[in-house]
Amino acid sequence: MSLKPLVDVHTHVYLPRYASWLRSRSVAPKIMSTEAGEERLLILENEPSGGRPVGPQYWDRQEKLRFMDLHGIDISFKRRVPYSTANPWLDFLSAKDAYELALGLNNDLEEYCSTGPSYSDSVLKRLYGLGLLPLVPGVTIDAIVEAVNQIAAASHLKGLIMGTKGIGKGLDDEALDPVWQAIEAAGLVVFLHPHYGVDSSAWGDKDNGHVLPLALGFPFETTTATRLILSGVFDRFPSLRILLAHSGGALPQLSSRLASCIDHDPVVASRLKHDARFYLGKLYFDAVAYGPEELGFVSEVVSRAKRFEAGSTVQGEADRREGSQRMLFGTDHPFFPPLTSTEKWKSVVENLEAIASVPGWGTSEKDGVRGGNALSLFGLQM
Amino acid sequence: MSLKPLVDVHTHVYLPRYASWLRSRSVAPKIMSTEAGEERLLILENEPSGGRPVGPQYWDRQEKLRFMDLHGIDISFKRRVPYSTANPWLDFLSAKDAYELALGLNNDLEEYCSTGPSYSDSVLKRLYGLGLLPLVPGVTIDAIVEAVNQIAAASHLKGLIMGTKGIGKGLDDEALDPVWQAIEAAGLVVFLHPHYGVDSSAWGDKDNGHVLPLALGFPFETTTATRLILSGVFDRFPSLRILLAHSGGALPQLSSRLASCIDHDPVVASRLKHDARFYLGKLYFDAVAYGPEELGFVSEVVSRAKRFEAGSTVQGEADRREGSQRMLFGTDHPFFPPLTSTEKWKSVVENLEAIASVPGWGTSEKDGVRGGNALSLFGLQM
Repeated sequence: MSLKPLVDVHTHVYLPRYASWLRSRSVAPKIMSTEAGEERLLILENEPSGGRPVGPQYWDRQEKLRFMDLHGIDISFKRRVPYSTANPWLDFLSAKDAYELALGLNNDLEEYCSTGPSYSDSVLKRLYGLGLLPLVPGVTIDAIVEAVNQIAAASHLKGLIMGTKGIGKGLDDEALDPVWQAIEAAGLVVFLHPHYGVDSSAWGDKDNGHVLPLALGFPFETTTATRLILSGVFDRFPSLRILLAHSGGALPQLSSRLASCIDHDPVVASRLKHDARFYLGKLYFDAVAYGPEELGFVSEVVSRAKRFEAGSTVQGEADRREGSQRMLFGTDHPFFPPLTSTEKWKSVVENLEAIASVPGWGTSEKDGVRGGNALSLFGLQM
Repeated sequence: MSLKPLVDVHTHVYLPRYASWLRSRSVAPKIMSTEAGEERLLILENEPSGGRPVGPQYWDRQEKLRFMDLHGIDISFKRRVPYSTANPWLDFLSAKDAYELALGLNNDLEEYCSTGPSYSDSVLKRLYGLGLLPLVPGVTIDAIVEAVNQIAAASHLKGLIMGTKGIGKGLDDEALDPVWQAIEAAGLVVFLHPHYGVDSSAWGDKDNGHVLPLALGFPFETTTATRLILSGVFDRFPSLRILLAHSGGALPQLSSRLASCIDHDPVVASRLKHDARFYLGKLYFDAVAYGPEELGFVSEVVSRAKRFEAGSTVQGEADRREGSQRMLFGTDHPFFPPLTSTEKWKSVVENLEAIASVPGWGTSEKDGVRGGNALSLFGLQM
């Protein structure tokens, strides 16, 4: 019987080099020690609840493996960047520091993964990484492309993680075209993850903890970042593979509205080769949406994309099974820990149960979302 | 055979009193005349493309009826407020002016509808209105409740339209509780419609026309406004009937994430009586999403809500047919006119085709969304 690993494509790690950098800082983002001897991660100076407690689960490999074992996760894709509601990956650094730290962290992560345990008796490791680019204002495009090539050459880094700001003007900045080109040529996967949310005035003045920036702000930012579609990035780089965090945020539900608004606006109506909905079929989506209806809907939106290719004569209902092939299980660990002691984490159990109960997905589709699709996307063969 | 009217619940009118006010202004929002003799509506001083052309379709009843006839629309619910990406309903007015204008416009709209044509041989009119409240900072709650009562007493006004700002602090402001109470007691429907979008820095510096603020900003705002759920408004006023514009924006797709974020945040985890997803079953959604997959998904999210009532033992797949009963056809007229001359408007045809092709909806559900649900919601009997 062939192995069917459970693969987590959305999990975070704060490598020691990165954590040390955060500890050395006096303004957010920073890691600070409380009087009780606890460490807290503060992303914004005015963050709700004074930041969040952090500990070994943020950086210790054994802790990550323990979490994986507890939840039956065989393989994880690490990202090395801090999770936050408002602050950029390396944007708090100068171009020089960002460049050096990116290269250093990419080396660290390759080592973190390559020296880790293997999966079962296979040639696969249990840990793989997504590298980091020095995407800050003032950095040269050559330096970014150098980091792309570094990642491509590291055998345990299978892609890269990216925020939404590019080098300051967002991902629809044509200055990034050589970066997309290098990523596409190297066959690396881009994991697009939010970081800023939206202007905090949207949340009002009530204390709702982190709920609104996390539940709504993050997905809004990811959705907005897809204005790279509107700028024609996928027309210029049709083989680019972008994986969207949190099941694409609000993009699937707003995609027909987006297409209609484009069609009705003289400024952009003729810009793209295809209806906007076509491009959703080129994207990948993690399955971090906490509900089966959401996941089933995303798979429909991917499946229907071919109807919207220019000149298409495809009609009829979208087949959810086809779209599921671009969806991949994730946990968001070490975030969303349970509030009270439980054996397994509710957030993980919810996402696994959601996958298991999507109407219209058979066993083969569910196995794909749990792991098979990740192995294909990242080119991992057992 | 019983009549099955097509009812448009999302359509806009600029009553002459309102248009005159806008023409008198020198700063946005304003209606200005170009040298070519054309009138343009400018919502923001820096609006893309210098505002949008406006004409009789914005205020003339005959034009509205002509549009309705062209698309087979039997009954329309008018709203009297300007559509924009950035500016509030009456927020540009002082409390005194807003109060007086709200009362005046409510009278105008009652007359506009009551003196209009009847539908077929029935006792129904072809035009009904949604009134307006003077929701601006500095107004007294008594004055707002007075407007609620005025609307309740006007036989052709069946509800009211509301932006997302409340009296300055949003719809989760407890100061609004007497307003919700009065609305609930009068049995009026609240149509919640966006107006501000999000901070325009989210859209970057490329010229994408109105696409991003309209396609994404509007739905983001509506979604954010549902923080009224998080404040317990539906726990305190369980019979309140709120209809969300644009099929609820991103709320359906983010609702399980919202529930999970609430569950994992100590500040709010114990605040509400039910899981956040329960409250989506208390909402109504217009069917202005331009795609059948989106509509089908929204109906699933409504249908599943009962699974999330505290203590519920309901399990199993959501039945889309049940959820469809809270969805209602709309056009967004006079916005989204076709760019080139066509007989029917693409935006209207798309929404009708979407309703007609939702998988899992039968003829009875589709007839409901096209008109039957609106008759029930607004208490219109033939």
